[in-house]
Amino acid sequence: MQAERAYRLVEIAEHIGARPDSLRLADPALQILGLASLAQAESAHISFVTDGRHLEAARASRAGVLICTPELAEQLDRACLVVAEPYLAYARLSRLFALELPPTGIDSSARIHPSARIGEGVSIGPNVVIGEATRIGNQCAVGAGTVIGRHCQLGERSRLHANVTLYDHVSLGVDCLVHSGAVIGADGFGFAPSSEGWIKIHQLGGVRIGNQVEIGANSCIDRGALDPTVIEDGVKIDDLVMIAHNVRIGRHSALAGQVGIAGSTEVGANCTLAGNVGLVGHIRLADNVHVTGKSMITSSISEPGSYSAGTPYSETRKWRKNAARFNQLDRLFQRLQKLEKNQ
Amino acid sequence: MQAERAYRLVEIAEHIGARPDSLRLADPALQILGLASLAQAESAHISFVTDGRHLEAARASRAGVLICTPELAEQLDRACLVVAEPYLAYARLSRLFALELPPTGIDSSARIHPSARIGEGVSIGPNVVIGEATRIGNQCAVGAGTVIGRHCQLGERSRLHANVTLYDHVSLGVDCLVHSGAVIGADGFGFAPSSEGWIKIHQLGGVRIGNQVEIGANSCIDRGALDPTVIEDGVKIDDLVMIAHNVRIGRHSALAGQVGIAGSTEVGANCTLAGNVGLVGHIRLADNVHVTGKSMITSSISEPGSYSAGTPYSETRKWRKNAARFNQLDRLFQRLQKLEKNQ
Amino acid sequence: MQAERAYRLVEIAEHIGARPDSLRLADPALQILGLASLAQAESAHISFVTDGRHLEAARASRAGVLICTPELAEQLDRACLVVAEPYLAYARLSRLFALELPPTGIDSSARIHPSARIGEGVSIGPNVVIGEATRIGNQCAVGAGTVIGRHCQLGERSRLHANVTLYDHVSLGVDCLVHSGAVIGADGFGFAPSSEGWIKIHQLGGVRIGNQVEIGANSCIDRGALDPTVIEDGVKIDDLVMIAHNVRIGRHSALAGQVGIAGSTEVGANCTLAGNVGLVGHIRLADNVHVTGKSMITSSISEPGSYSAGTPYSETRKWRKNAARFNQLDRLFQRLQKLEKNQ
Repeated sequence: MQAERAYRLVEIAEHIGARPDSLRLADPALQILGLASLAQAESAHISFVTDGRHLEAARASRAGVLICTPELAEQLDRACLVVAEPYLAYARLSRLFALELPPTGIDSSARIHPSARIGEGVSIGPNVVIGEATRIGNQCAVGAGTVIGRHCQLGERSRLHANVTLYDHVSLGVDCLVHSGAVIGADGFGFAPSSEGWIKIHQLGGVRIGNQVEIGANSCIDRGALDPTVIEDGVKIDDLVMIAHNVRIGRHSALAGQVGIAGSTEVGANCTLAGNVGLVGHIRLADNVHVTGKSMITSSISEPGSYSAGTPYSETRKWRKNAARFNQLDRLFQRLQKLEKNQ
Repeated sequence: MQAERAYRLVEIAEHIGARPDSLRLADPALQILGLASLAQAESAHISFVTDGRHLEAARASRAGVLICTPELAEQLDRACLVVAEPYLAYARLSRLFALELPPTGIDSSARIHPSARIGEGVSIGPNVVIGEATRIGNQCAVGAGTVIGRHCQLGERSRLHANVTLYDHVSLGVDCLVHSGAVIGADGFGFAPSSEGWIKIHQLGGVRIGNQVEIGANSCIDRGALDPTVIEDGVKIDDLVMIAHNVRIGRHSALAGQVGIAGSTEVGANCTLAGNVGLVGHIRLADNVHVTGKSMITSSISEPGSYSAGTPYSETRKWRKNAARFNQLDRLFQRLQKLEKNQ
Repeated sequence: MQAERAYRLVEIAEHIGARPDSLRLADPALQILGLASLAQAESAHISFVTDGRHLEAARASRAGVLICTPELAEQLDRACLVVAEPYLAYARLSRLFALELPPTGIDSSARIHPSARIGEGVSIGPNVVIGEATRIGNQCAVGAGTVIGRHCQLGERSRLHANVTLYDHVSLGVDCLVHSGAVIGADGFGFAPSSEGWIKIHQLGGVRIGNQVEIGANSCIDRGALDPTVIEDGVKIDDLVMIAHNVRIGRHSALAGQVGIAGSTEVGANCTLAGNVGLVGHIRLADNVHVTGKSMITSSISEPGSYSAGTPYSETRKWRKNAARFNQLDRLFQRLQKLEKNQ
C-alpha cells in the first residue's frame, strides 16, 4: 500500500526502535513509499523475512530493503534492516503505512444529544447518533451510521468504525478499536420459564471495556444481567465473536473468529481461543490457557496449557465407518474387558 | 442499576404477584432504588437468592431485602420477600428497573414512505427508513438507523433496536424485540447448478414472526424461497443465530448464540438448542427436544429428550493420541471381533 | 408471491429457454401471476416438481401449470411445462418474479464525496455514504444506511442492500449482490506478541471480489495484511460467514452459513463447504473439495472428494458413556494390542 508520504530508511529504523547501525548494505537516505509482501514489493518498498523457509522468496523479492534477523541477513547479500524480532518490527512499522484516519470535525448530519460531552480533535461521521450524558474522549473517531446510546463513555483516541451500535451504559477505555457491525450492550439472553412461556429478565448491567481493546466486525458483547460484562485491557477479539452476559475476559487474551462464550464464564489473562471455540457458561479458565479451533470446553480449567476437542477429519466414506463406531464405544470397552478377563 | 424512580417494597411485592404477608422482617414502606446482585447490592437495593449454595453470599449481602423461598428465608435472619419461585419473581421484577424506552415521536430525519401507516405513541429514531405499504403498530419503537422494507408489519409494542434491517414482506407480531444488527428477510441461499456456474434462485417468500418473539444482535433470519420462513409465538433467539429459508421454529423454543439451522428444517415447540448447535436441512425435531452445545444434528428426531454429539476436551497432548485413534475405530472393531472369535 | 405484472405461459417458456412444444395440456396464452410451492399455488400460479417423491403433492396442487421432466409429465394428467432440468428452470423463472429493485435516483440524504464517480441508472438510498475516489458502476443499487469507504469500486449492476459496510480499498466486480450487515474490508486479525502485550499489525491490503459474487447477511470478509484478500468469480457466500485476511476462494465455490476460514488459506474452484465448516489458516484445498457440516479441516487437501469430521449425535445419556471412552481410546488400542500378542 502506498503511504501518504515517503519515509527515509533511517526514519523507519528509528520508528521501529532499531539503531542506525542496524542498516546493512542499505542507504539510510533511501526513500520508502510503502510496505509490501516479498512477492509484491517493488524497489521503493520495504518488506520483511521472519523465517529461513522464506529465504528463497527473500532473495527473489524486488523490495528495496528487507527487515530480518542478523542470522538471515548473513545469508542475504542485499540491503537489510537488521533487528532481533522482524515480525514485531513489521507490526510497529505497519502503523506508519496504515490507512489515514477520517478528517476531524463533526458532520452536520450527526445527531448529538445536548447533554453529551464531546472531546477535542474528534471525528464524528455522517448520521452518527450520540445519546444523553455520553462522553466522547479527545481524538476519538466515530464512523458513519454508528449509534451510541445513553450514558456511554469512549476513552481518548478510541475509534468506532461505521455502523457500530453501542447500547446504553457501555464504556470503553482509551485506544480501543471497534469494527463495523459490532454490537455492544445488547440484552443478555435471560428468561425465566413460567406457565405462560419465557418471562424476560431485563438486562440491567452494562458493559465495561478496558484500554487497547480491539473488537472485530459483527461481534456481539451482551450487557450484564445485573453486574456488567467486563473485557479487560489489551484483549483482542476477532469477527463474529459472541460474548454473553456477565462474561469476564482477562488482560491480553485473544479470541479468534466465531468464538462463543456463554454467560458468566471467566477467561483468565493471556489466554488464546482459536476459531469457533465454545465455552459453556459459569466456568473459569485460568491464565495462559490455549484452546485449539472449534473445541468445546465444558468445565473449568485450572492448569495453564493447551486443550482440544473434536475428531480429525477424513474422507467422508471412511469417516462414516469410524463415526458409526463412536456410538458403540462404551460397548466396545465392555467387550474388551471381557476378553481380558477370559484370557 | 438505578431506577428512574423509587418503589416502596409493598409495590414491588404487588408487581411480582406476591401477597403483602410475604414480607418477613421487612418494612413494607422501604424505598427500593434498584435491583442488584448479592455482591453489589447496597441498602436501597433488592436482591434475590435462588439456591442454598448462595446462602453465604446472601448473609453477607448489604441488600435491603432479599427475594427467596420460604425454606431459604428460614435460614436467613434478615428482611426477605418470600415467594415460591424467586428466579421468576426476579424476572418479573427486572421489568420495573429496565432501561427507559426512547421518547415517543418521529425524528425529523426519518424517511417514511407516504403509503406507510404509523400507529399511535410510536418512537421512530433518527435516520430510520420505512418502505412502501409498511404498517407500524401502536407503541412500537424503531431505533436509529434501522431500515424497514416494503410491505412489512410490526405488531403493537414491538421494538426494533438501532441498525436493524428488515427486507420487504417481513411481519412481526405484537411485543417482539429485535436487537441491533439483526437482518430479517435476506435472501435464502438457493442456487441451481448449471454449466455457467450457480444460477440464483430468487427468494420470493417472506418471513412471518409471531408474538413475543425476541431476536438477538446480528442474527439472520432468511426469507423463504416461495413460502415464508416462520417463527412461532414466544420463540427466543440469541445473538449471531442463523435461520435459513423455510425453516419453522415452534412455539416457545429457545435458540442460544451461534445456533445454525439449514433450509426447510422444522423445530418443534418448547425445544432448546444450546450454543452453536447445528441442524442440517430438511429434518424435523419433535416438541421438547433439547440439544447440548455445539452438537450437529443430522437427521430427524421424533422422541423428546436430550441429544448430544462431539467429544470431551482434554489436554492437546493427550487429545492428539486419542483423536488419532478415531480414524482407526472401524479397524479396531474388526480386530476385536477377530479376537472374540478366536478365544 | 405476486408478480408486478402477469406473464403468458408462452413468455415463461421462452424466459427459461424451453421450446413452445414443451407445453403439455397447457394453454400458451394462460396468464401466470406468480410462482408458488405445490402446496400454496393457486390456479394463476406456476409451480414445479423435481422428483418422483413429490408426485402425490403435484397431483394435489391447485397450480395452473407445473414445470417437470418428460418422465414426470407422463405420470401427471395435467398442464405441464416440460424441461430437462426443472430445478434449473425454476431458478431461471424465479428471476421474473423477484422483488422489484428500488427506484433509480440518488436520495438527497446520501453523502457522496465530490471525487466519487457515480454511473448511470444507479439507485442510491437514504443516508448512504460514499467516500473519496470511489467508483460506482452503471445500474448499481446501494441500500439505505450503507457506508462505502475510499477508493472502492462497484462493477455494473452490483447491488449492496441496506446497512452494508465497505472499508477503504474494496472492489467488487459486476453483478455482485451483498446482503445487509455484511462487512467487507475490516482489519484482519493480526498482532505481534511483545512484552507490552499485543502490537497491532495494521492491515494494509484491500479486498478484491470478482463478478457474480453473492455475500450473505452479516458475513465478514477481512482486508489483507499486505496483499489483498481475494474472492473469485461466481463464488456464493451465505450468512454469518467469516473470511479472514489473505484468504483466496476459487471460482464458483459455495460457502454455507457460519463457515469460518482462517488467515491465508486457499480454497480451490467449485468447492462446497457446508454450514459451520472451519478451515485453519495457511492450508490449501484443491478444486472440487466438499466438506460436510461443522467439520474442522486442519491440513491441506490435495485430492477432490468429500471430507468430514465430528461424531454422530445420540441421546445425551448414551452419548455421555461413549464420549467418556473417547479419552481412553489410545489406552484401549494398547490393551487390544496386548491381547493380540498374548493370544
